[in-house]
Amino acid sequence: MNNKQPGKPVVQTVLSPALLNLYELNSSIVVIIDVLRATSTIATALHHGAKEIIPVATVAECIQLGKQMDAITAGERDGKIAEGLQYGNTPSVYTPKFVGGKTVVLTTTNGTRLLHQALEADAEEIITGAFCNLSSVCQYLVQRQKNVLLACAAWRNRVNLEDTLFAGAVIDQIKDQFEIKGDSSQIAEILYQEAKPGLFEYMKNKKASHYQRLMDQGLEADIRYCLSVNSADTLPVYENGRLAVRK
Amino acid sequence: MNNKQPGKPVVQTVLSPALLNLYELNSSIVVIIDVLRATSTIATALHHGAKEIIPVATVAECIQLGKQMDAITAGERDGKIAEGLQYGNTPSVYTPKFVGGKTVVLTTTNGTRLLHQALEADAEEIITGAFCNLSSVCQYLVQRQKNVLLACAAWRNRVNLEDTLFAGAVIDQIKDQFEIKGDSSQIAEILYQEAKPGLFEYMKNKKASHYQRLMDQGLEADIRYCLSVNSADTLPVYENGRLAVRK
Repeated sequence: MNNKQPGKPVVQTVLSPALLNLYELNSSIVVIIDVLRATSTIATALHHGAKEIIPVATVAECIQLGKQMDAITAGERDGKIAEGLQYGNTPSVYTPKFVGGKTVVLTTTNGTRLLHQALEADAEEIITGAFCNLSSVCQYLVQRQKNVLLACAAWRNRVNLEDTLFAGAVIDQIKDQFEIKGDSSQIAEILYQEAKPGLFEYMKNKKASHYQRLMDQGLEADIRYCLSVNSADTLPVYENGRLAVRK
Repeated sequence: MNNKQPGKPVVQTVLSPALLNLYELNSSIVVIIDVLRATSTIATALHHGAKEIIPVATVAECIQLGKQMDAITAGERDGKIAEGLQYGNTPSVYTPKFVGGKTVVLTTTNGTRLLHQALEADAEEIITGAFCNLSSVCQYLVQRQKNVLLACAAWRNRVNLEDTLFAGAVIDQIKDQFEIKGDSSQIAEILYQEAKPGLFEYMKNKKASHYQRLMDQGLEADIRYCLSVNSADTLPVYENGRLAVRK
């Protein structure tokens, strides 16, 4: 006898890219999560009118493609602007005036790599999520009614707090419409319920490692922005090598 | 300038064996954690007077070595007694009368595999931990004053709640004497602080996947035992291919 509730699609959570191969991706929407700061930057740039964002794996590719397309080149390694690129990963740089109508070629330490990994694993569909576009992500998932994998970019494959919290925030919003599966999903939701009243204070009090890394670089404003909810509420969808807002 | 507090050894946590390669093991004590049920069974058997436990990777090795040494063969695959072995992974089976003075050859889905992985990664020292020997583990770590890696066996590399909770319980007890490093350690401690008042109820309420798997097999007593604190308070140390109580 099968006691499974029929019809509800499943949400799972993967806390590190190194665990991605444990999950079936080819019938799932994969949500790439890199709250500090890649997927916050992506949502912000698109929300502010960027035409598209092309995520690439290496700095060299970023420079080459940027020249070829006369595009903005952006990206970081270890949290700092990568040598040879024009801009870093600070969302507030990507104002409407700056990115309106433009193409951005982006490479980051964790987020863009995970996206390519999901692509190679034949994800049915790839979108990106961060607190600044939480509502758009949740609305889209509820509307699509397909299986979901919440994929945390982590830090060099080490589990991090902020991406786990965002996975928990999504689960908190969509759990009535989905079957929430696996201990990683439970862990994410538990943490989010505790953190919800004040994400910035929580990251500070719990000594989150990337919080500390960015604070050491004087990037408190970036952290505060990336932990603010729905400030760039748009939906980046990956298609044909580029992230763009689904029309 | 180095702001690091000098002298305090570091505690890190790895939530899945698939992430073990991200950590330096050769100057660390590795605590193998497989609460449900391998490391609970190990502590219990040794506490009840078993001479030694020989963890092996495969069922075939377990059968062969068991014959060779005229030892008890025990182990599970997917939570059930593995075909060809005499006993499973139920701690209460290993009474003083049954295991006193005997050798047990043991193979399990996750715990014994992780132990071999740590061994191959040149861990300086390997011990095993579970709630039933929490105090012994913590006392030993505090006494040794070396770097520690709390290594969760997880479930087929997927992060699980119970091993994470035990990592948090260790951190809760030893944090004053160590530098607690990394978001995985923070996550473990947050979860443990929430779960501490009632581990069994917590596992139930949070729908922990291995809780459900074992409940489906009628093994509630095993779960309750494995979540009880200091019920087999001894310290299994791995040396020369075997786990034994350090004399």
